[in-house]
Amino acid sequence: MARSPRRAGAPRLQLPLLCLLLQGATAILFAVFVRYNHETDAALWHWGNHSNLDNEFYFRYPSFQDVHVMVFVGFGFLMAFLQRYGFSSVGFTFLLAAFALQWSTLIQGFFHSLHGGYIHVSVNSMINADFCAGAVLISFGAILGKTGPAQLLLMTVLEVALFGINEFVLLNLLQVKDAGGSMTIHTFGAYFGLVLSRVLYRPQLEKSKHRQCSVYHSDLFAMIGTIFLWIFWPSFNSAPTTLGDGQHRTALNTYYSLSASTLGTFAMSALVGERGRLDMVHIQNAALAGGVVVGTAGEMMLTPFGALAAGFLAGTVSTLGYKFFTPILEAKFKVQDTCGVHNLHGIPGVLGALLGVLVVGLATHEAYGEGLGSVFPLIAKGQRTAMSQAMYQLFGLFVTLMFASVGGALGGLLLKLPCLGSPADCQCYEDQVYWEVSCLQALRPPLFPPSLLILPWGTPQLWSSAP
Amino acid sequence: MARSPRRAGAPRLQLPLLCLLLQGATAILFAVFVRYNHETDAALWHWGNHSNLDNEFYFRYPSFQDVHVMVFVGFGFLMAFLQRYGFSSVGFTFLLAAFALQWSTLIQGFFHSLHGGYIHVSVNSMINADFCAGAVLISFGAILGKTGPAQLLLMTVLEVALFGINEFVLLNLLQVKDAGGSMTIHTFGAYFGLVLSRVLYRPQLEKSKHRQCSVYHSDLFAMIGTIFLWIFWPSFNSAPTTLGDGQHRTALNTYYSLSASTLGTFAMSALVGERGRLDMVHIQNAALAGGVVVGTAGEMMLTPFGALAAGFLAGTVSTLGYKFFTPILEAKFKVQDTCGVHNLHGIPGVLGALLGVLVVGLATHEAYGEGLGSVFPLIAKGQRTAMSQAMYQLFGLFVTLMFASVGGALGGLLLKLPCLGSPADCQCYEDQVYWEVSCLQALRPPLFPPSLLILPWGTPQLWSSAP
Amino acid sequence: MARSPRRAGAPRLQLPLLCLLLQGATAILFAVFVRYNHETDAALWHWGNHSNLDNEFYFRYPSFQDVHVMVFVGFGFLMAFLQRYGFSSVGFTFLLAAFALQWSTLIQGFFHSLHGGYIHVSVNSMINADFCAGAVLISFGAILGKTGPAQLLLMTVLEVALFGINEFVLLNLLQVKDAGGSMTIHTFGAYFGLVLSRVLYRPQLEKSKHRQCSVYHSDLFAMIGTIFLWIFWPSFNSAPTTLGDGQHRTALNTYYSLSASTLGTFAMSALVGERGRLDMVHIQNAALAGGVVVGTAGEMMLTPFGALAAGFLAGTVSTLGYKFFTPILEAKFKVQDTCGVHNLHGIPGVLGALLGVLVVGLATHEAYGEGLGSVFPLIAKGQRTAMSQAMYQLFGLFVTLMFASVGGALGGLLLKLPCLGSPADCQCYEDQVYWEVSCLQALRPPLFPPSLLILPWGTPQLWSSAP
Repeated sequence: MARSPRRAGAPRLQLPLLCLLLQGATAILFAVFVRYNHETDAALWHWGNHSNLDNEFYFRYPSFQDVHVMVFVGFGFLMAFLQRYGFSSVGFTFLLAAFALQWSTLIQGFFHSLHGGYIHVSVNSMINADFCAGAVLISFGAILGKTGPAQLLLMTVLEVALFGINEFVLLNLLQVKDAGGSMTIHTFGAYFGLVLSRVLYRPQLEKSKHRQCSVYHSDLFAMIGTIFLWIFWPSFNSAPTTLGDGQHRTALNTYYSLSASTLGTFAMSALVGERGRLDMVHIQNAALAGGVVVGTAGEMMLTPFGALAAGFLAGTVSTLGYKFFTPILEAKFKVQDTCGVHNLHGIPGVLGALLGVLVVGLATHEAYGEGLGSVFPLIAKGQRTAMSQAMYQLFGLFVTLMFASVGGALGGLLLKLPCLGSPADCQCYEDQVYWEVSCLQALRPPLFPPSLLILPWGTPQLWSSAP
Repeated sequence: MARSPRRAGAPRLQLPLLCLLLQGATAILFAVFVRYNHETDAALWHWGNHSNLDNEFYFRYPSFQDVHVMVFVGFGFLMAFLQRYGFSSVGFTFLLAAFALQWSTLIQGFFHSLHGGYIHVSVNSMINADFCAGAVLISFGAILGKTGPAQLLLMTVLEVALFGINEFVLLNLLQVKDAGGSMTIHTFGAYFGLVLSRVLYRPQLEKSKHRQCSVYHSDLFAMIGTIFLWIFWPSFNSAPTTLGDGQHRTALNTYYSLSASTLGTFAMSALVGERGRLDMVHIQNAALAGGVVVGTAGEMMLTPFGALAAGFLAGTVSTLGYKFFTPILEAKFKVQDTCGVHNLHGIPGVLGALLGVLVVGLATHEAYGEGLGSVFPLIAKGQRTAMSQAMYQLFGLFVTLMFASVGGALGGLLLKLPCLGSPADCQCYEDQVYWEVSCLQALRPPLFPPSLLILPWGTPQLWSSAP
Repeated sequence: MARSPRRAGAPRLQLPLLCLLLQGATAILFAVFVRYNHETDAALWHWGNHSNLDNEFYFRYPSFQDVHVMVFVGFGFLMAFLQRYGFSSVGFTFLLAAFALQWSTLIQGFFHSLHGGYIHVSVNSMINADFCAGAVLISFGAILGKTGPAQLLLMTVLEVALFGINEFVLLNLLQVKDAGGSMTIHTFGAYFGLVLSRVLYRPQLEKSKHRQCSVYHSDLFAMIGTIFLWIFWPSFNSAPTTLGDGQHRTALNTYYSLSASTLGTFAMSALVGERGRLDMVHIQNAALAGGVVVGTAGEMMLTPFGALAAGFLAGTVSTLGYKFFTPILEAKFKVQDTCGVHNLHGIPGVLGALLGVLVVGLATHEAYGEGLGSVFPLIAKGQRTAMSQAMYQLFGLFVTLMFASVGGALGGLLLKLPCLGSPADCQCYEDQVYWEVSCLQALRPPLFPPSLLILPWGTPQLWSSAP
């Protein structure tokens, strides 16, 4: 009770000051560097003799909006499964992504669209910035409930920068193909977050264990996130691909892959569940692995069958990961992975990168015809063979894992700074630490002792048709 | 307690094995038959001399995504109104639709796009597959809460096949117009499900009556489903119509029809409600009837007034159906229609088919001008008169009712197979039979005896301004 | 108990009769006046020699659908934060908007697209009608919980008419630019509602105070509304702008403005919150002010930096408004503003209008090049200078405030008619007055005395890392 005013005062100002500082910095950098591109600027667009139809806005904006829903509704609500952490899941997603959009516009702009000293922005910058925000939110999933907003904002500062560098190395230097980001987004985001979570390992986390599960309606809120992610994933993977057949094929492949990963997930969840029951955690997460696994190969001639097979594999492996590997990850590797991003983004991301290696290695002039140049320009020009492009893809995966691990470790050390106000072990997964919770009703659930919760209709005779 | 291992074991493996079997079968059929079409294949697209603008992806994909939201979010959450059946409503919607997408790609492909022994897929296959999934989910609504996932998957296998045949008979053999599926989707899905529900009639269902109503927040989750269905219905009806004026007019007609059905629903709900109160069941469902009723005529020259009138009629009839006909349906016809699909899809679907007959019969060269050929090719070519086309439309309705009834009866017999693990009468509408329900909190509601629930502010003096 | 049958009977019929009357009237007016335009009519479209690509449907419909989501999901769920008023928030939004769509199609049609005695409708009418519905829902937010559906429908009749006149004066007579409606939608809707709320002032409203706060899950439902509004606001502001660079630039500006207002909101909310805690009310509302503030200037050459600065200002001012000005508004000005529309739409709308004045005044031929004609046709033609156009913009703001205030006062007098069944002071914010609430579970929350709600883990040691 007798807290020193300094200790009480400092954290109070921490989040506001950090927000103001970061917003001020990005605003100044925007003033100096960011300009409309030729499709967005009134003078530049009307200088050329374009039809309005040619403006890339009409090809990309509907996909962008779908991606935008995924980032803010999808990730936000998917993480709202915890019984007392819904405000933080949705709210911090909102804060981190809103900052990441601005910061990655700058970072990605420096690397990809700096012309004449200026970063030129358009609908493509919006898509790329949302992609980067997605990677940040994947990492957030690994440390969900165990970090405060000031810590998370600092993590975003670091991760966006490293994301931009890694993406530059892969897409520009190594000329690797990764439209839907199996490597750049999912693998990077997952392992960055997991290594960070390892550094922040809390041996006493069971003090908050009673808040780490879901309640009935929080699981339904999480399903809103899942379903919107699932629905719009074809737009996610196809948003940055080449126009025409490229976007069309990518959307179709992702659609098939997701439908197969859903069946794989239901099959495995019921198989490993107690008395054949399905587990909401699996359905909410593993069913999405089909989108991750075709992030690299989705724009290629994967074939519809290939998409189904890849999706099924990803859903199956991801579900088994939740059941069997997550406990080991904590017990053996001391990685506390709140949302299981290792199963949803880590493993499926690596599988997606390897699938990309395979499909690239099998690319032939027969399969792609004149379209080879738009999917694999270097192979079409004869500068690389399919096999050497495949090796570059594989090398890209290693680079990504390296950047993610080193970055995550750095991030972890940064977030350990004592002034950042990390929540105590007994206050994890608790909204009240950061939010006014009106009317105190959020606290109701734990007040009823489990003894009250006997089934009024007796022990269920599961799966039997006789009463 | 002393259950034989066999009885406990078999159902446990039922769902996983069925998922694996079905996924394996569709994957093999995909490998053999399914190929990218000329707009999706890299070689084929670049072989022609197209502008990327010409790729149908850009005309259809935004509508497809809206339809996709309707199928997975709309249907899933609309059915989540039951207090203890939200996981199953959303989860089984997810499972059934994911499988139906694959299976109907094959079935519809065999009937509509088999060229040279291969099914060629594109954004149109995605739209059509989602439509078929919609019909399956309508049938699911009739038997919601009374069937297990293995039963539902088998129903999907049968229904998708019959849907494909019925659609082929109507659209290809009879050359009937039904873009938004008043007949092929709504009438077919509703009566298939209702006849199936009749065959599975449970005289002892009142054992689960206490779980058949909603709770406050489950009704709000259901409103998420309603509103997304309502918003995107113009995209649903217009997704497969002819490009240009066809899509434009269909979207506009559906928009007006829905707005009128909403006013009709509110009017009727308050009129028939106790002390003028509105009923959430009516608002959640009957307000959508305006979309169903213009499923056939929406692409025609219905006129904005015609759309309003049709929508108002549908909303009114549907609300009265919920109030007065659903009880009769159970008491007299032994049809237990959980979601009232008879009122939302059955009657409005039939009305929509009849509206189509009327509007087709009134079609003239003056009204459609040169556009007659794109809406009614056979009339434009002189092969049919408007009146004979109208008679074909009417015949299409009878064919649909026939396929749906026979199919639903077959489906009911199939689902009665004892090995499928139908839930006991006292376990209907209960998630715990199929799902791990975390922390047991789902069970709280019924623990408070109604006697506790006296209004703290006394008996409400409804609708009066004096306290 | 001994209520006269007349008093009990009248309100019961009020809502149904009003719905039927209004629907009948709009249907008759539609029959007389509304026709398909040349892009929607089969004969007119095929008469010209168009490519389907030219149909405006493909340029506008995806944006329209985003706007449609904002109106029905966004506004509806944003207002569902009240613990016992979710059905009314979502349901009355649904009713009012569905009627406003039809009524404003007529009103806006009379003023903007009456040719040869007919109103010609297309996707543009749909966008404009949805915009008008947005203004009505803003006003609804000010009086949320204190008015019945019959009152609200009458308000809609009046407000849509005045909205149409005000919009005609601004856009046609004064030739003011206001694509995203900082003035016509936000300022108009907010002050109409606030003045109306002033006229309906209830000195005894604290009788319903215990129902005026949120519960945990109602706040999460409200976040669904917030996030969908936030995501799709770039489409809202860009939906009616000129094609090509106009839509592209507007979307980009809105996107940046919103991201900055989000950071500003989080910063201010934590700064003014007790012990640095964030307030859901701020996050749900003030983060959206960035979309309002660029409603006028978003289509202009605001620059990305300008968008960030404007958004940050709006988020900051709006949050401070919620904290400090809302209590004054009620105490001093007797305006009870349930949703704080003054902070979200009123002040940011006025700021947006003033930002428009500034950006218009700074417009030069250099900055806009050949594009000047599409953004400022009168300046390009030399009929106005940038400065005089800026003065017209300023005058437009005053006209809007005038129409809104006089209209709101008239509306308030209209809604005081005793036959309209306004809820008693002790029945405000209560769904049960208008809705059947199933199973009575909505009533649970207040039954638990706060004394039960002691934290089981002791007083939280906020923001400190030592337990």
